[in-house]
Amino acid sequence: MNTTTESAVTEAELAAGRRAYELDREHVFHSWSAQKQIKPMTVIRAEGSHVWDGEGRKLLDFSSQLVNTNIGHQHPKVVAAIQEQAGKLCTIAPQYVNDARSEAARLVSELTPGNLDTVFFTNGGADAIEHAVRMARLHTGRYKVLSAYRSYHGGTALAVNVTGDPRRIPNDYGTAGTVHFHAPFLYRSQFHATTEQEECRRALDHLESIIQLEGPSAFAAVVLESIPGTAGIMVPPPGYLAGVRELTRRYGIMFIADEVMAGFGRSGKWFAVEHGGDVVPDLLTFAKGVNSGYVPLGGVAISDEIAATFADTAYPGGLTYSGHPLACAAAVATIGAMREEGMVENAARLGDAVFGPGLAEIAARHQSVGEVRGTGAFWAIELVKNRQTREPLAPYGGSSPEMNTLIAACKDRGLLPFANFNRLHVVPPLNVTGEEARTGLDIIDDVLGIADTFVTG
Amino acid sequence: MNTTTESAVTEAELAAGRRAYELDREHVFHSWSAQKQIKPMTVIRAEGSHVWDGEGRKLLDFSSQLVNTNIGHQHPKVVAAIQEQAGKLCTIAPQYVNDARSEAARLVSELTPGNLDTVFFTNGGADAIEHAVRMARLHTGRYKVLSAYRSYHGGTALAVNVTGDPRRIPNDYGTAGTVHFHAPFLYRSQFHATTEQEECRRALDHLESIIQLEGPSAFAAVVLESIPGTAGIMVPPPGYLAGVRELTRRYGIMFIADEVMAGFGRSGKWFAVEHGGDVVPDLLTFAKGVNSGYVPLGGVAISDEIAATFADTAYPGGLTYSGHPLACAAAVATIGAMREEGMVENAARLGDAVFGPGLAEIAARHQSVGEVRGTGAFWAIELVKNRQTREPLAPYGGSSPEMNTLIAACKDRGLLPFANFNRLHVVPPLNVTGEEARTGLDIIDDVLGIADTFVTG
Repeated sequence: MNTTTESAVTEAELAAGRRAYELDREHVFHSWSAQKQIKPMTVIRAEGSHVWDGEGRKLLDFSSQLVNTNIGHQHPKVVAAIQEQAGKLCTIAPQYVNDARSEAARLVSELTPGNLDTVFFTNGGADAIEHAVRMARLHTGRYKVLSAYRSYHGGTALAVNVTGDPRRIPNDYGTAGTVHFHAPFLYRSQFHATTEQEECRRALDHLESIIQLEGPSAFAAVVLESIPGTAGIMVPPPGYLAGVRELTRRYGIMFIADEVMAGFGRSGKWFAVEHGGDVVPDLLTFAKGVNSGYVPLGGVAISDEIAATFADTAYPGGLTYSGHPLACAAAVATIGAMREEGMVENAARLGDAVFGPGLAEIAARHQSVGEVRGTGAFWAIELVKNRQTREPLAPYGGSSPEMNTLIAACKDRGLLPFANFNRLHVVPPLNVTGEEARTGLDIIDDVLGIADTFVTG
Repeated sequence: MNTTTESAVTEAELAAGRRAYELDREHVFHSWSAQKQIKPMTVIRAEGSHVWDGEGRKLLDFSSQLVNTNIGHQHPKVVAAIQEQAGKLCTIAPQYVNDARSEAARLVSELTPGNLDTVFFTNGGADAIEHAVRMARLHTGRYKVLSAYRSYHGGTALAVNVTGDPRRIPNDYGTAGTVHFHAPFLYRSQFHATTEQEECRRALDHLESIIQLEGPSAFAAVVLESIPGTAGIMVPPPGYLAGVRELTRRYGIMFIADEVMAGFGRSGKWFAVEHGGDVVPDLLTFAKGVNSGYVPLGGVAISDEIAATFADTAYPGGLTYSGHPLACAAAVATIGAMREEGMVENAARLGDAVFGPGLAEIAARHQSVGEVRGTGAFWAIELVKNRQTREPLAPYGGSSPEMNTLIAACKDRGLLPFANFNRLHVVPPLNVTGEEARTGLDIIDDVLGIADTFVTG
């Protein structure tokens, strides 16, 4: 998306932004925040890979917001499709047949691997996980669930309970039925591994050991991000996903691949699980990229075997907006635009030609970089105070003055970053241009000059 | 909304409907259903108070879908607002300030009673309940939650666990921390009461007794639909809501008023809790009517005291689409249209002048009617096999051939009903005309002639 035809920011837009800020501070309760300690940035406009803040400054969006605007902001084809569907039929209850919903389900079934031929639509990723776990429990007749540390699966009670990041901790009322394991993460290996191959084998042994110690017939599901996202974009080593598939099959456990952030092209393939070869999970959860979040939508792609469990027995779950026509029409248009414009291929190409080599150079140049890792348009820069000790630049679960300085420096230089703990993530829209990608990397390169001054020892 | 300017159904619409049906049966997983035992109705068009099925037949929508399209289908002002916002800014992450979100929060704060001045937006009703309970737990430092039998609070794990209808049962893994009580329901009184006043007093004594037996300092919240909806539209007797407010205040328990179905004008007031006088809950959950479901949206209106708990301490909850601009713009336009067109007043007037007296006449005329009850555009007809024994026409938690016959008879006569167990609900859009309201009642009157043939003894 280029923005060469954009108009200048008007005084009316700026005034609307000031009014919005006042009302926000009076009436809006923000996610994951201490309400009086935040000074939220106002966004008065967004287009393609850019947003404009409350002062009219244009920023390159290297966050895709919460890693959801995979097609960038205000893609004209998707905007037009939403406007058309709005004029035709905004909403209809989930018990009826609707053409937008049917077509979206067909497309998701077509794109997902293997026999994931039926789709249950939800409002977002958290309720997709809630329903996937419920389906696995009812299908297997088992209760317990395995999920990874350093993971995020959503904010509702069950979803946040299977989550393995610090957002679970204040919501953890006993973790009944949830057992967390360590997925592979060579840079901070739990298994004292020194190669990807060793990390992979040891992580699989660890998972099998937990299954055996907890009881081989205890588990309904393993919930696993195909590539953990907010937790740090730890691309699993070759063989890991296939190994999880093999283990779960051996013990009769359903494999729920969480593709809420990693799916819909983010990793350079339609679904990140495809990086594992011909691995087909039993359930695949999605949201975000399915329609870039233009209208709230999530869902679960369901294997034929699990769908059959609910052929003649009612599935005890639902929601008013399941398969919402406006949201589904946006998904149909988004998938169409992604295909027509080769966005998934573009993400793969950018990963290979720009982000991969560019970030490797940045890592070589800056002592503050512990590791860069990723694929497609899905990269993390792990920042450390010391390359030997690997001490992170902010503690696990927290921020630090140093990280806040770097985030502010990015914004000052015109880049909207995605940051988590001691990491900066490079997660722009999939259709970012090569030039925009390089501009963003140049800004990060510059900002990491500041990070290097925080390096000790 | 009148539909006098409507065009004839086209062959293209019918063909699209047939294609949608085929794809639906192949790829769409439906809420609360045995997937192979349903033959879902296709909806090819909807406008005002009407929908058109897959054969092009026009039906009067006395269901408002899932009691959400309070302004009817395709209200032109709201459609235009969605189209305009889509062209401007579809989505932005929750951490930023956005004008549509700010204005929606201002309006909800203005409409809700008392000091509910801050709004946390969610995607729907279930996650509104999830977050309201979480806020109450963190605010009080307590864990347990009280909720009513014969209630529905949503489909996610925590929301379905506090639910008190049969949809909870297959999802009940121990009901850890949830205690259910009986709310007032004179027609099937648990308290052997004979008057509304007696039912009210005994129900409050029952609630206080449970609080004392479970531990006066055990409970974080009482979750209560201000008027239970799907469970049967049991309008609470005068004094009950005020009594719950007094009890919860005495024991330091947060009062969560669930207004997902009852709110936004359905009951003839903006919020059903207003029928209880000057009762102000601590948290008020909403969804559905806030924008008629045109774009998925829900939320929690938060008291100043609870908001203050999260002023300097982070609230541990959130979601990608919190305060979604497109959904919030639809809410702003919906509230505007409801005010301009006096829809809440219209619902109150219809309740007093058409539904109240019309349903009383129907009750007098049909032996199959055990009771009619309701307010505004929110009415239930309780169908029985026998007025003396009050044996329901379908068992609690199930359907029956008799009820299925009545539902089909409504559709045959051009009425789309809302049915649950042994009840038909009269829940049309709030802006239904007097003529449409009477037409619907006439069809129900006719259909209940069939119901009378099922009466025994």
